[in-house]
Amino acid sequence: MQEHRSDQFQVNNGLDMSKEIFSKDETLSMRRKLIGQSIKLFYSDNPVKIVRGRGQYLYDEKDVRYLDCISNVHHVGHCHPDVTRAATAQMELLNTNSRFLHDNIISYANRLSATLPDKLSVFYFVNSGSEANDLALRLAQQYTQHEDVIVLDHAYHGHLKSLIDISPYKFRKLSGQKEWVHVAPLPDIYRGLYREDHPNPGEAYADTVRDVIEDVHSKGRKISAFFCESLPSVGGQIILPQGYLTKVSEYVRSAGGVLVVDEVQTGFGRVGSHFWAFQMQGEACCPDIVTMGKPMGNGHPLACVVTTEQVAGAFAGTGVEYFNTFGGNPVSCAIGLAVLNVLEQEDMRGNATRVGAHLKDLLNKLQTKHQIVGDVRGVGLFLGLELVVDRELRTPATEVAAAVVKRLREERIFVSTDGPFESVIKFKPPMCFSIADADLVAQKIDHVLTDMPVVIP
Amino acid sequence: MQEHRSDQFQVNNGLDMSKEIFSKDETLSMRRKLIGQSIKLFYSDNPVKIVRGRGQYLYDEKDVRYLDCISNVHHVGHCHPDVTRAATAQMELLNTNSRFLHDNIISYANRLSATLPDKLSVFYFVNSGSEANDLALRLAQQYTQHEDVIVLDHAYHGHLKSLIDISPYKFRKLSGQKEWVHVAPLPDIYRGLYREDHPNPGEAYADTVRDVIEDVHSKGRKISAFFCESLPSVGGQIILPQGYLTKVSEYVRSAGGVLVVDEVQTGFGRVGSHFWAFQMQGEACCPDIVTMGKPMGNGHPLACVVTTEQVAGAFAGTGVEYFNTFGGNPVSCAIGLAVLNVLEQEDMRGNATRVGAHLKDLLNKLQTKHQIVGDVRGVGLFLGLELVVDRELRTPATEVAAAVVKRLREERIFVSTDGPFESVIKFKPPMCFSIADADLVAQKIDHVLTDMPVVIP
Repeated sequence: MQEHRSDQFQVNNGLDMSKEIFSKDETLSMRRKLIGQSIKLFYSDNPVKIVRGRGQYLYDEKDVRYLDCISNVHHVGHCHPDVTRAATAQMELLNTNSRFLHDNIISYANRLSATLPDKLSVFYFVNSGSEANDLALRLAQQYTQHEDVIVLDHAYHGHLKSLIDISPYKFRKLSGQKEWVHVAPLPDIYRGLYREDHPNPGEAYADTVRDVIEDVHSKGRKISAFFCESLPSVGGQIILPQGYLTKVSEYVRSAGGVLVVDEVQTGFGRVGSHFWAFQMQGEACCPDIVTMGKPMGNGHPLACVVTTEQVAGAFAGTGVEYFNTFGGNPVSCAIGLAVLNVLEQEDMRGNATRVGAHLKDLLNKLQTKHQIVGDVRGVGLFLGLELVVDRELRTPATEVAAAVVKRLREERIFVSTDGPFESVIKFKPPMCFSIADADLVAQKIDHVLTDMPVVIP
Repeated sequence: MQEHRSDQFQVNNGLDMSKEIFSKDETLSMRRKLIGQSIKLFYSDNPVKIVRGRGQYLYDEKDVRYLDCISNVHHVGHCHPDVTRAATAQMELLNTNSRFLHDNIISYANRLSATLPDKLSVFYFVNSGSEANDLALRLAQQYTQHEDVIVLDHAYHGHLKSLIDISPYKFRKLSGQKEWVHVAPLPDIYRGLYREDHPNPGEAYADTVRDVIEDVHSKGRKISAFFCESLPSVGGQIILPQGYLTKVSEYVRSAGGVLVVDEVQTGFGRVGSHFWAFQMQGEACCPDIVTMGKPMGNGHPLACVVTTEQVAGAFAGTGVEYFNTFGGNPVSCAIGLAVLNVLEQEDMRGNATRVGAHLKDLLNKLQTKHQIVGDVRGVGLFLGLELVVDRELRTPATEVAAAVVKRLREERIFVSTDGPFESVIKFKPPMCFSIADADLVAQKIDHVLTDMPVVIP
């Protein structure tokens, strides 16, 4: 198939890395031997081999183009040339560690701080959302001198040992729940305790956290942090009800704890209307610690924790160094700055607002047409389409969702599922996703659902 | 000072990132405000601002050149053009995650596996040595179904919560020792329990691990892993005595545990004679898990865990996915491959052997001349010069070591200290370090020690 490749495969500076080294079969069999099987493949019964990407598109080894609705990491689009250029220029010049003074880390922290409430002003750069959440936990525990953490049901905060402990999505399958970890109900107004017909679900769900705190106190334990995503992602693309986070932060602070907000999946303008998803909860809502990651470096391993002077001061007060070998290096920060520049220059937040609203509108139309669409939710380019076997009972249509994912792949569209029942088709594409892309994906889903055999519960 | 800059500052593609954005004073004051104070600066009373690097040299904002004896991360030299070229080419083409098939991760794992014993054949790519060690801990505990870990005194394995727990260097200052962590004596034949005059220090120190295991068993607990660096670095650039690791692995395996070797600081040919430092212990020595990191990506956040099919199989047996967002992405692997190519093409292991032997010889000569030099140790480009106030008592000359570091900075040479008393001046420069560099640093140390006021114990 090599001769069918487009000219775009010819890469600069003589290194044509698009040529396959191994046939797809060889790649697959070598992968099975050389790479831990816990590292799973998409479409595991027939995985995809991707050799190049551009914008919102990925191309396989036969130059077949796929529309990518899931790569939230590749935030400003796959292989954005401005990001590559910034990385190259800095790699040619210097890439050392944060024990030396350098302007990039300062410039970058300064730029990020302009997007955040004033009191979130002290930064720690790290290499992954997991490293960020682990550090956030250390900061919270050091500052409060308390140990216990409250998390949301079905939450996932990362692959590290400490984060599996605070991720019900993982610990239920692995090590079990630790005595210092407490689970509050997921504030899901479609499927949770309090639903869309409740007069004030934000307050009602916040009260469940107050109840957890009281329970923790009754055991003689103390809360260090309430730890949650601004929009629970693995939980099913959930939008927190209004007022929830502010009320929760009041309860948690009264208990001597802090509010840690995980923006690893949701930050950097994905929601369109705001730079950070927690800002959707209003100006009164200000976390004590925010973690960020995935989209930050457009694929480059870059993540961050930001906190207040008080929390940072308590952490520094131990006198113990925090050294992160690669964290905040000049190349990572140059890349981070380039991503911010592209976001602004190409008005990608505006695009997320416009295209997200359009796609949500199209998905809402699918709901009126297809009984199996139980719920459409989300904001900006963070959307979920929940499939149910029965609208009244809201029985998750897990198998149909999996079938839709598989059929869309045949239509050359990548989507995937999330939620406790893997019944939510999620959309979190690169931020350059277009109106035409939205039209295409909605049209294809319409066809797929129309062709689907009727589901009998 | 801008006009004094050399032409080399002119970077390709129009992005001149070498220009200072802020004056050094501004950088410093903004850094104090914006970056967590736990992230410490070298020479904290008068930090250095570095704006570019090449090979074994770093340049400050006034274009003053420093000889870099400590950047083990920048393994094949700062800003090696082959590494930058490979990174750029792959960044232009694709950088997605490991859920898609890609040749780079396979090629890279395959290349690495050729450097390792046959049974170490299953790879997990991650973003930092800390992530690697955390995963190693998970693998060991999952495979053995035991919890407890034995570590060496003064060890440091990373900044994550789980790793502070197994790092006496950190937990003694922070959270204290957990009940599942046990500390074995550092097998330091200069300063430890058994010294250079012992007939078989390898066996004697291994027996201390056996004693720890017996103690653990007497408490009804079980060993999952003995976890150590192949050459304890923070411990003071220690060379493990011959036979130690093999004997320890026998004891640990008899107890149902595994041997985890941390090569984060020591791998990739730094010792010259071998690709991995654990290989210095002979062919009979084969760890169950090896972690690698710092030099792997020449500054790019790239790290890895390799293990056996058995251990990997047990981990996959849980059925739970291990997903690392950036781990093993095409760009990281392209960079890793480029580093391996440069190492081979420029015979950097040979260079490490030759230059390391020469530098060690020069340091030995300093020992004959200066009473304060208590010990010279190491191999390849992993060397330590231990300063003592009294050669008989081996009293650490901590303050003098700090003064030497400070004076050498004035001589435009970067070194730093390690060891329990910060009395060991360490050398772990980029692998392109030359004979002339070795001559210069030895000569400068000679001058500095000669000029030093006599130390009264």
